[in-house]
Amino acid sequence: MRNIAFIISYDGTNYHGFQRQNEMMTVQQALEDALFKITGEKIVVHGCGRTDAKVHALNYLLSFCTESSVPAERFPAAVNSVINDDIFVKRAWEADENFHGRFSVSRKTYVYRINNGEYNPFLRNHSWYYKYPLDVEKMNEAAKFLIGTHDFNCFMASGGQVDSTVRTMFDANVSKNGDIVEISLTADGFLYNMVRIITGTLVYVGGGKFEPEDVKKIIESSDRTKAGITAPPQGLFMKNVEFENGK
Amino acid sequence: MRNIAFIISYDGTNYHGFQRQNEMMTVQQALEDALFKITGEKIVVHGCGRTDAKVHALNYLLSFCTESSVPAERFPAAVNSVINDDIFVKRAWEADENFHGRFSVSRKTYVYRINNGEYNPFLRNHSWYYKYPLDVEKMNEAAKFLIGTHDFNCFMASGGQVDSTVRTMFDANVSKNGDIVEISLTADGFLYNMVRIITGTLVYVGGGKFEPEDVKKIIESSDRTKAGITAPPQGLFMKNVEFENGK
Repeated sequence: MRNIAFIISYDGTNYHGFQRQNEMMTVQQALEDALFKITGEKIVVHGCGRTDAKVHALNYLLSFCTESSVPAERFPAAVNSVINDDIFVKRAWEADENFHGRFSVSRKTYVYRINNGEYNPFLRNHSWYYKYPLDVEKMNEAAKFLIGTHDFNCFMASGGQVDSTVRTMFDANVSKNGDIVEISLTADGFLYNMVRIITGTLVYVGGGKFEPEDVKKIIESSDRTKAGITAPPQGLFMKNVEFENGK
Repeated sequence: MRNIAFIISYDGTNYHGFQRQNEMMTVQQALEDALFKITGEKIVVHGCGRTDAKVHALNYLLSFCTESSVPAERFPAAVNSVINDDIFVKRAWEADENFHGRFSVSRKTYVYRINNGEYNPFLRNHSWYYKYPLDVEKMNEAAKFLIGTHDFNCFMASGGQVDSTVRTMFDANVSKNGDIVEISLTADGFLYNMVRIITGTLVYVGGGKFEPEDVKKIIESSDRTKAGITAPPQGLFMKNVEFENGK
């Protein structure tokens, strides 16, 4: 069996997330349907993470096994020609047999985009419109308390099932470009709804409801109810994935 | 009767253009439905131009008469609270009784956006994806032949009904920002599909099929078949409208 890896991007507006679900269109389903058309095989793709409905990806890693003889470099054009125009295969390569779209990932970067200016219909599916002024400097100061190895239980929605809620955050930044406030988080892994709850918490800092140091206390509390609201899904993008032994 | 003017923006992806049509959702219909909810009146809005299905607007002018007592400055929030999130009223004011969303317009600027880089699912509804390389300098050189008062008959799709096909083009520019090629045209008026046919013609120049000077010959020919293809609608934006006696 060959093992093929893809980097894809997708606009998640019209999908119920990445992971296959019964009777709802997901990105995984769309990809597996496209691969069936090309190879005639019932392929299962292994994605680098679940994403919620309406969440997007700029660079999303996945892998799958196939017995087809399609050269790896031909897969992008073949899939892109049969899949909806809101999913795009950027590149494909022949991976080692042990490579796995989920387990070979070492770091992921998510970004969350907030439109903090005038409402703009062109940004409605790709940002959170937040009309009250945000102090971006304070949000960035608060984000620094996320860096390091912590139990991030306070930022996990109920429904997440994991052995451990300890993760290592390598980088956390908040910046502003025009009206867009962008929160960028890089970690070895993320808990269920973690970026969206961190975003809701940082927005409380930016609006003056929390002080930057409160983030430290919230982490120490391990109490979800101490953190902020869960930001809506459409502002969230999986931006980048780092992985080991890709070849 | 009061006369109210609006500047609105809209993402045209889900609409069959601005102008009311039977049994198809248009921006005009959506606005008139919203105004009915607010005022209880069957209002007819006068827009500054028809736009085709899937065409967008960054600043679109319209006016309407009403007997309601809603203060002009309250209309944006009122309409925005009841209309779909892909239409946004940016501002409203009390206009002179003779002001008219269509007839008071002196100049309009349209922009057309072409994605000339890698396919990007996030741009699919807001640009024309064109994968062959474009010589933007030559396109800009060609665009200069559009400036002035000409019979633009060669750039009108059949189906356009007008007394005269003479228009004055005040400015015509082609520029590139990252992967996005942007064509910007300012005129006293535009014929049916004019911007999209000019775009298709300039793309032929950018790809080497036409020389810049050919645009001059095409205008002189008054022959639609000499011009380029009609570019698809989703790259087109009404960007700006200048008007007289607005108050």
